Amino acid sequence: MNEKTIRICKTMKDDNIDIAFFNNPIVINFLTGYKSEPHERILAAILFADAPPLLFTPGLEFEVAKRLTTGFDVFSYQDTENPWLVLKDKLDSLDLPIQNWAIEKDYLTVARKEALERAFSNSQFDYDFSPFLEELRLQKTADELVLMEKAGYWADEAIKIGARTLKVGVTETEVVAQIEYELKKRGISEMSFDTMVLFGDNAASPHGEPGSRQLKENEFVLFDLGVMYKGYASDVTRTLFFGDKPTDHQSHIYHLVLEAHDQAMKQASLSLTAEELDAIARDVIDSEGYGQYFNHRLGHGLGQSVHEFPSLMKGNTMKLEKNMCFSIEPGIYIPNDIGVRVEDCGYLDESGFHSFTSFPTDIAAYKTFILSEQ
Amino acid sequence: MNEKTIRICKTMKDDNIDIAFFNNPIVINFLTGYKSEPHERILAAILFADAPPLLFTPGLEFEVAKRLTTGFDVFSYQDTENPWLVLKDKLDSLDLPIQNWAIEKDYLTVARKEALERAFSNSQFDYDFSPFLEELRLQKTADELVLMEKAGYWADEAIKIGARTLKVGVTETEVVAQIEYELKKRGISEMSFDTMVLFGDNAASPHGEPGSRQLKENEFVLFDLGVMYKGYASDVTRTLFFGDKPTDHQSHIYHLVLEAHDQAMKQASLSLTAEELDAIARDVIDSEGYGQYFNHRLGHGLGQSVHEFPSLMKGNTMKLEKNMCFSIEPGIYIPNDIGVRVEDCGYLDESGFHSFTSFPTDIAAYKTFILSEQ
Repeated sequence: MNEKTIRICKTMKDDNIDIAFFNNPIVINFLTGYKSEPHERILAAILFADAPPLLFTPGLEFEVAKRLTTGFDVFSYQDTENPWLVLKDKLDSLDLPIQNWAIEKDYLTVARKEALERAFSNSQFDYDFSPFLEELRLQKTADELVLMEKAGYWADEAIKIGARTLKVGVTETEVVAQIEYELKKRGISEMSFDTMVLFGDNAASPHGEPGSRQLKENEFVLFDLGVMYKGYASDVTRTLFFGDKPTDHQSHIYHLVLEAHDQAMKQASLSLTAEELDAIARDVIDSEGYGQYFNHRLGHGLGQSVHEFPSLMKGNTMKLEKNMCFSIEPGIYIPNDIGVRVEDCGYLDESGFHSFTSFPTDIAAYKTFILSEQ
Repeated sequence: MNEKTIRICKTMKDDNIDIAFFNNPIVINFLTGYKSEPHERILAAILFADAPPLLFTPGLEFEVAKRLTTGFDVFSYQDTENPWLVLKDKLDSLDLPIQNWAIEKDYLTVARKEALERAFSNSQFDYDFSPFLEELRLQKTADELVLMEKAGYWADEAIKIGARTLKVGVTETEVVAQIEYELKKRGISEMSFDTMVLFGDNAASPHGEPGSRQLKENEFVLFDLGVMYKGYASDVTRTLFFGDKPTDHQSHIYHLVLEAHDQAMKQASLSLTAEELDAIARDVIDSEGYGQYFNHRLGHGLGQSVHEFPSLMKGNTMKLEKNMCFSIEPGIYIPNDIGVRVEDCGYLDESGFHSFTSFPTDIAAYKTFILSEQ
């Protein structure tokens, strides 16, 4: 069992929990090392306070799960069986105490909780492990940081591929396709979310979708993307200026966002709360009167998924802690006019914020990059 | 309100339900036409037995949701607000009865149900809308069938792209990348699940993953893929023989699977149950002694997602009904040796099964296709 699993079992003992039931694939992955998306089927890791853990899989996955996990007793059900009855038989056969269950209330559906209640009618299912699991995921281990650094490297590579693809007339969709194609060829087969490439005013919607809009000279190209690397996510945004002559307006908005980004990167520290860091960037944009156009939080935690705690926003008084990983991504979006966002992801420690992503952020970065490749 | 929403409201009246809360993005899409994946944020459609419906969105999505929906009163919360309190204020302001709630127990998490119970402490949350929603989704409307037909067309196109990419030495990952690249360029930006391309013995695991395995002459290439077309999924599998000379063993296994597939396609009818159709294909494979290597169900429903009801397997005595859409996909997987699966998806009516996918299935299909393109 790994360090995090041992901490969970210790908490179970402290809180008098007999058995913990986890069916969130991300949690199962960090407990067992086994990664799978079972769709509507049930896949669960089951921990006991004082007995070896179990992994319960669809029959189809039994062989693979057995090969890829250690320390877990793998057992399965066939598609033609009622999985809850198979689970009950297994637990009955072990003859362990199963009175007090811990569940993950942020993930378990009402229907599945009711199925557990029916199968184990003498048990209690009140204890929620979600907050503790989030806490466990907040502070990354050294091994995890290495993987996130790698995920960041590939996000930078993706920006480079995208930059090389830009030319007058190319469409947003074509650029997205090229990025993912080159990454796949180099072994990165999963993005951490739908790759976003938006041209000019299309970038003014913070949740826009790439389409058949064609690139013109002297407009911004917003790339927002990330990859999954061995189960860990990255997330980067660059707004590259495609051309030689930004207007004063373009340049002003860009530099305002960049200043907000840079201040937050520089001032991030263990002495701040999540909302204080958000305020540092927001104040920069507010001070020039663009506060209403920065209509989302400063950033979000990331790790095994691209959106987890901490959330960097007003109202979140959580202290920032060592080895928390999050994005810093201020933006300004003026409808039908312009959209600019600059984002890096990284981790925090005593010496400050360390970014996993490092593609240059100056307004001439695109030009410089293309020239450097000639 | 569309036909399906009207049916839901009618059921609510019949069953004395005051209010229904849906936060499954697929359900929200078919109720409102608005498609969004809000991650950890709350997005919900709220129906009343006798009042106009609401759409509750994160603040970021307010403008887009308002633009893309009709008939729904859109309201939002900011990231800094407690969404449950915003929801409570809104419902209080409407002064409608909200005693008996319907929820979707297959989707709503325990934590969110508890948040609703805290916010609306005088209400009941026992009524489960999941079975009715599944039933609503089972039988597709004519409009839906048109979109699924299109999704099937693009799945066939994807197989063609894959077939053109095959050559000695190419890797599985390269073929996947090429398929998705070409589709993206042609406007298909979302696959219905992770594209699978597996060579030779790699295909012997029904849930294998594409890797750096290189293609050799005279082996099978298993493609399992599908696209999303305007919110509807397709799913097709072809196992193409790359070469001129299948061994007797390769040919025998292939034709056994094909026969199982063809029999199920031909005999599918409204007079059968799901398990009876499964048995038709299974009997073909059993009869030659390979039953143990056909270790999954015959097929699954599909529509707005690639896995929904009905499940074609032993134990499912559900009658097959008109306009149900599902896959037919028998396979034989002999570990470290060979994996073959042939799959089409389509819909059923009085005259039989109508496939959305139609790439040829004979063992020489790859050769014939390549020659036809020269």
